[in-house]
Amino acid sequence: MSAAYERYLEHMQGLHALGSALSLLGWDQETMMPPAAVAHRADVRSHLSGLVHDGTVDPAFGDLLAELQESPLDDDQAANVRETVRDRDRSVKVPRELVTELSRVTSLAQQAWVDARTNDDWDRFGPLLAQVVDLRRREAEAVGYEGEPYDALLDAYEPGARAADLAPLFDELRPALAELTREIGERQAPDARAALQGRWDPAAQERLSRRILADMGFDFQAGRLDTSAHPFTGGSHPTDVRLTTAYDPADPAKSLYSTIHEGGHGLYEQGLPAAHAGTPLGEACGLGIHESQSRLWENQVGRSRAFMEYLLPLLREEFPEQAKRLDGDALFAALNVVEPSLIRIDADEVTYNLHIALRFELERDLFRGDIDVEDLPHLWRVRMTEDLGVSPLGDSDGALQDIHWSFGALGYFPTYTLGNLYGATLFAAAGKELGDLDGRIARGEFAPLLDWMRANVHAHGRRWSGDELCRRAAGRGLNTDDFLNHLRAKFGVR
Amino acid sequence: MSAAYERYLEHMQGLHALGSALSLLGWDQETMMPPAAVAHRADVRSHLSGLVHDGTVDPAFGDLLAELQESPLDDDQAANVRETVRDRDRSVKVPRELVTELSRVTSLAQQAWVDARTNDDWDRFGPLLAQVVDLRRREAEAVGYEGEPYDALLDAYEPGARAADLAPLFDELRPALAELTREIGERQAPDARAALQGRWDPAAQERLSRRILADMGFDFQAGRLDTSAHPFTGGSHPTDVRLTTAYDPADPAKSLYSTIHEGGHGLYEQGLPAAHAGTPLGEACGLGIHESQSRLWENQVGRSRAFMEYLLPLLREEFPEQAKRLDGDALFAALNVVEPSLIRIDADEVTYNLHIALRFELERDLFRGDIDVEDLPHLWRVRMTEDLGVSPLGDSDGALQDIHWSFGALGYFPTYTLGNLYGATLFAAAGKELGDLDGRIARGEFAPLLDWMRANVHAHGRRWSGDELCRRAAGRGLNTDDFLNHLRAKFGVR
Repeated sequence: MSAAYERYLEHMQGLHALGSALSLLGWDQETMMPPAAVAHRADVRSHLSGLVHDGTVDPAFGDLLAELQESPLDDDQAANVRETVRDRDRSVKVPRELVTELSRVTSLAQQAWVDARTNDDWDRFGPLLAQVVDLRRREAEAVGYEGEPYDALLDAYEPGARAADLAPLFDELRPALAELTREIGERQAPDARAALQGRWDPAAQERLSRRILADMGFDFQAGRLDTSAHPFTGGSHPTDVRLTTAYDPADPAKSLYSTIHEGGHGLYEQGLPAAHAGTPLGEACGLGIHESQSRLWENQVGRSRAFMEYLLPLLREEFPEQAKRLDGDALFAALNVVEPSLIRIDADEVTYNLHIALRFELERDLFRGDIDVEDLPHLWRVRMTEDLGVSPLGDSDGALQDIHWSFGALGYFPTYTLGNLYGATLFAAAGKELGDLDGRIARGEFAPLLDWMRANVHAHGRRWSGDELCRRAAGRGLNTDDFLNHLRAKFGVR
Repeated sequence: MSAAYERYLEHMQGLHALGSALSLLGWDQETMMPPAAVAHRADVRSHLSGLVHDGTVDPAFGDLLAELQESPLDDDQAANVRETVRDRDRSVKVPRELVTELSRVTSLAQQAWVDARTNDDWDRFGPLLAQVVDLRRREAEAVGYEGEPYDALLDAYEPGARAADLAPLFDELRPALAELTREIGERQAPDARAALQGRWDPAAQERLSRRILADMGFDFQAGRLDTSAHPFTGGSHPTDVRLTTAYDPADPAKSLYSTIHEGGHGLYEQGLPAAHAGTPLGEACGLGIHESQSRLWENQVGRSRAFMEYLLPLLREEFPEQAKRLDGDALFAALNVVEPSLIRIDADEVTYNLHIALRFELERDLFRGDIDVEDLPHLWRVRMTEDLGVSPLGDSDGALQDIHWSFGALGYFPTYTLGNLYGATLFAAAGKELGDLDGRIARGEFAPLLDWMRANVHAHGRRWSGDELCRRAAGRGLNTDDFLNHLRAKFGVR
C-alpha cells in the first residue's frame, strides 16, 4: 500500500470515528436521551457535524485525493477513491452558509411540522417548507445536474438517479397497480383483518420480534433492538447495528413488520465488509438497495403464505388465546389486505408505490417550478382521489402526513419504490438459484437467503451503482416486471 | 464580553461537545453496547480523545489564554481562565507519546486484571501494573510537584491535594476508626443481617430505586437510571445525567445504596450551573467534593435511623412478605453492621476508610520508590491483618480486588476518604442551619437538604478548591472531627 493511500485511510478513519459518534448521538436521542437534553444534544451534534464537514472539504485532503487519482491503485483502492471524490465534490460545492442555514431552517421546520400535523394546520408548516425548498433548490444549483434540478437531490440518496429515468417506471407502475388493487379487492374477504382483533401483550410481541430477528440471522452480539416513536435502523459498524420497533397492543402486525423491515436493513449493515469500514467499500450501495433488503424481508419473505407456516407456531407459543382462531390462510389474509388508503406508512404492498408516485411527481414539479409549495395541499387531494380513489379529510392525512420534508429530505421518497423493485428482482434471482424458497421459509430456514444476499449484495459495499449491483447479482437491472410478477403470483391475479 | 473571551468560550464549547460525545460513548459501552463492538468503540474513543488533546494543547489556544490572563476579566471569567490554564498546563506538560503509551498499556492491563482476579493470579497483572506505575511516574516528573511525585497524581483527581497533608488525616482516622469498630462490634447484635434474608424481586427493587431517586429530587426529565456491572454516574450536562445501579435478588441493600450513592453524584451533576456548561465554573469542584455528595446521601441520609422511617413503608409496598419481619430498629441494624472485612466496596461506613488508608500509603510508598509493585500482594496481607484484623486468602480478595489500578488510576483512592470527611462536615452544617433534619428525613422531605447543597456546593462549580468551598459552605474546611462525631453519635459510642 502506498504512503498516500495509507494517509487516505487514516483520514477516512478519523471521519468515520466522528461519524460513528454522530450515529450514536442520533440513536440515543431517539431511544434513550432524557427529554431535557434536547438543546445540549443539538449543540453537540452540530459541532461534530461541522468537524466532519471541515475534514471532508479540507483542501489538503482534496490534494491527497487528486494525487491518488493519478497513482496506480488496485481495484478496491480505486473504487474507494472514486466514491470519496464523488462525496467530497458534492460537499465542496455546497457553501457552508447554505449547510448551516438548511440546518437552522429544518430545526424550525421539524417542530413546526409536529404542530401543524397535530393541529391539521398547513399554514404553520407551509412557509417553512417553502424556505426548505428554496434552500435545497440553491443546493441543487450549487451541486449541478445534467437533466433537471431535482436530479441533484435524487443523487444525494441514490447515486446517479434521474427524474427522466424514474418517470417511466412510475408510468408503468401506476396503471398496473391500480388494476391489481381493483382485481385483488374484488376477490378478498371483506373482514380478513378481524382475525387479529384483541389485545396483544407488548412483552410477548417483543419476545416474538427477538425470536424472528434471531431466526433471520440478526446477530445480537453485534446489535440491539429497542423501541422508538418512528422505527429506524442506526449504528456505525457491522459490529454495532441498532434496530428499533414499536409495540401496539391493538395491532401485532405493526411491530411484526417494523421489526422484520428494520431487520432487513440491519442484516445489510451487519453484512457490510468490516475490513472496509470507514471507506465507501464498507458502506451501503445507496438507499434503493438498502430499502431492497428491508422490503424483501418484510414483503417477499414476511408477508408470504409460506411465512405463515413459520409464524403460526410462534404465535401459538406467545399468544395461545388469540392464535386459537387463526390458521395459515386466515393469517395470510389478515396480513395482506389490499385496499387504497390515505396513509403511506400503513399502505399494503400493492398500493404503497402509488403513494410514492404521487410524492415523486409533486416533488419533481416543485423543483421544475411548475407548482408552488402553497399548491401542495390541494394537489395532494386531487392526486389521491385520482390515483387511489380516496380523499383526505384534512392535511394531516394528506400533505402533512410524512416527516421527511420537515428535515429537508426532498428526493428521498423514490428510493422506497426503487427498494421495492430491486427487492423483487433480487428475491426472484435468489429463489431461482436456491430453489424451494417457499419450503425453506415455511421451515424458518432463512440462512440460505441471507447467505445469498451476503455474497451478492452486502459484500460489495458501494463498489457499483444500485443498477449495476442488481445486474451482477440477478442478471438484470432495475425493472418493474419482477415486482409486478411477484404481486400477480402472490395474489393469484391473471 | 471581550472578543477574546468570546473566542475562549467558543473553543471551550467545541471541546465540551467532543467531551460530551466521549461521555455518551463511555456510558453506552457500559450499559447498551453490543459486545462485538468493543474494538470499534475503542477506535472511536481514541480518535475523539486525540481531538480533545489536540484542541487543548493547541498553541493558538495557549496564546489566547495568555492574552486573557493579561486582560480585565470579571470574577467568573477570571475563575474560568485560571482553571483552564491549570488544566491546559498539565496537558501540555505530558508528552503525547506518554499519553498514547499509557492508553495502550492500560487497555492491556484492564483485560489482564480481569483474568488475574478471576484466576487469583497476581503474576498475570503485576508486570503490567509495574509498567503502569512507571508510566505514571514519568507523568508525575513531566507535570512536576512541590512535595513528592505522588502529589502530581493526587492533583489530577483533587486539585491541590498533597500526600503530606493527607497523611495526618489518615493518622488521625486509623486509631479512632479501629477503636470505634471494636466498640460498636461489642454492642451490636450478632445476626442483624438475617432480617434481610430471602429473595427480593429485582423489578420491585427497580421501582423502589426510582421512587427514592425521585423523592431525593433527581429529575428524570434530565436523567436516567440503568444497570451496569459496576454502578457509576455518567452524563455530559445538567440536562443529561445518567446513573447506573445493579439489582441482586439476594441483597436489596446493594441496589438501594448504589442507587442512593450514584443519586448523590447525579444531584450534584444536575445542580451544576448550566449557564457555565463547558467551562470550569460548570464543572464539579473535584472528586473529593463529588464524593461528599454521594457519601452524604448514602450514609448520613440513607443509613440514618430516621431514613428507616421513610424507607419502611416503601418496603412494605414493594415487598409485603419480607417487610413483615422488619421494623425500623431491625432495618437500621441490618443496614449498619460494622465489622472488618476484606473487600472495600462491601465495607461499612466505619471501616471503609481503613481500606483507603492502606491504599493511600501503599501508593505513596510505591511512588517514593520505598516499595516495589511485586511487594504489593505481601504488604497488602500484612497491612490488612494489622489494620483490620482480617487476612485475605488469595490476592483476589487482596491486592487484586479493585479495578482502579488497571486503568491507571493511582492517586484516586484518597478522594473517597476526602468525600467522607467533606460529606460529614457539609451535612453537619446543613443540619445546623436547617434544623430537624432527622424529622425531615423520616418524612421523606429531602428538598431542604438538596436546596442547601444546591446553593452552597453545586452552584459554585470549580470556583474554589474543595477545602475553600467547604470552608465557605460549612464554616470550616477539611477535618476529621465532623466525620468521627457523626459516627459516635450514630452508633452511640462515647
